[in-house]
Amino acid sequence: MANLYVALMHYPMKSLKGGVVATAITSLDVVDIARSCRTYNVSRYFIVHPLESQRTIVHRIIEFWFEERPSRVEAVRIISVAEDLEQCFTAVAEAEGEEPLVWGTSARPGLPYPRIGWDEARKHLRTGEKPVLLLFGTGNGMAEELLWACDALLPPVRETSDYNHLSVRAAVAIILDRLKGDEG
Amino acid sequence: MANLYVALMHYPMKSLKGGVVATAITSLDVVDIARSCRTYNVSRYFIVHPLESQRTIVHRIIEFWFEERPSRVEAVRIISVAEDLEQCFTAVAEAEGEEPLVWGTSARPGLPYPRIGWDEARKHLRTGEKPVLLLFGTGNGMAEELLWACDALLPPVRETSDYNHLSVRAAVAIILDRLKGDEG
Repeated sequence: MANLYVALMHYPMKSLKGGVVATAITSLDVVDIARSCRTYNVSRYFIVHPLESQRTIVHRIIEFWFEERPSRVEAVRIISVAEDLEQCFTAVAEAEGEEPLVWGTSARPGLPYPRIGWDEARKHLRTGEKPVLLLFGTGNGMAEELLWACDALLPPVRETSDYNHLSVRAAVAIILDRLKGDEG
Repeated sequence: MANLYVALMHYPMKSLKGGVVATAITSLDVVDIARSCRTYNVSRYFIVHPLESQRTIVHRIIEFWFEERPSRVEAVRIISVAEDLEQCFTAVAEAEGEEPLVWGTSARPGLPYPRIGWDEARKHLRTGEKPVLLLFGTGNGMAEELLWACDALLPPVRETSDYNHLSVRAAVAIILDRLKGDEG
């Protein structure tokens, strides 16, 4: 079995107008995604932001949830706060004794990057060896330089739909269920 | 094909201590769940609260999103605000010319109510005739009197997991994907 790690990226993201921006921390992303990750046995959930002031906000939100009921404490305990992708990659490599595969997610169809299908991804997590670091974007999605850094991209959740504007909280939940939902 | 309707219920809910309460509106439930519903072609998303003051809050949140970009407007357009389950039931019956089946959701395993499995539920939505009104709880889950009102309950999302505390936003996303994700 390959362990799964999740990273919520806030830079470099596309803005609505197509530029590259850092997005602000959304408070509910902290605990909602931690609960989904804990439910599907994700080993660690990285919240990644280049700005120290934004990382401080995440730490404060985590502190708040540590005062809450046990189910919330158990979820936020798997959060780590990181500065960039490299820090997440190094942390996983150190914990696992092996460098992870980096998989990206995007709602945009037809991107010119290597792909991995749902079946193959599920199979790797069940029987593979290399750990996986799964990246989620915010804002208007990951900028090209971040997509390039991925070993492979998962397909869009709704490839042929006329409407594909899930919140990142919903996308993480659906993708974790597709990857690990059959574990029982 | 049977049309699917979603209702987010705020009363009667279980409290942490086991009493029956009305829960407060959570602002992100409005737009997150609307986006998930629109993504999976849900016909209407009812936000249901017995208190007028809480329903007013929902209307204000909807107004806010109507000032946002087109993808958000398209999502919140499918929201209706209702007072109780009966209002939702009547609205669906009027729109469809037929009374809906009412399906419930719960994370609690082993509840003594009629069940419908994932395969059967998917099949009904693909080939059945009666529309379906799918209920989601808030707080600590739906109280017994609301579970009793359902024709059938879907299984818990993670029936055998040691941790089953998804946010309702995540649960709606996963359940819609399980029910309608294979439509493409």
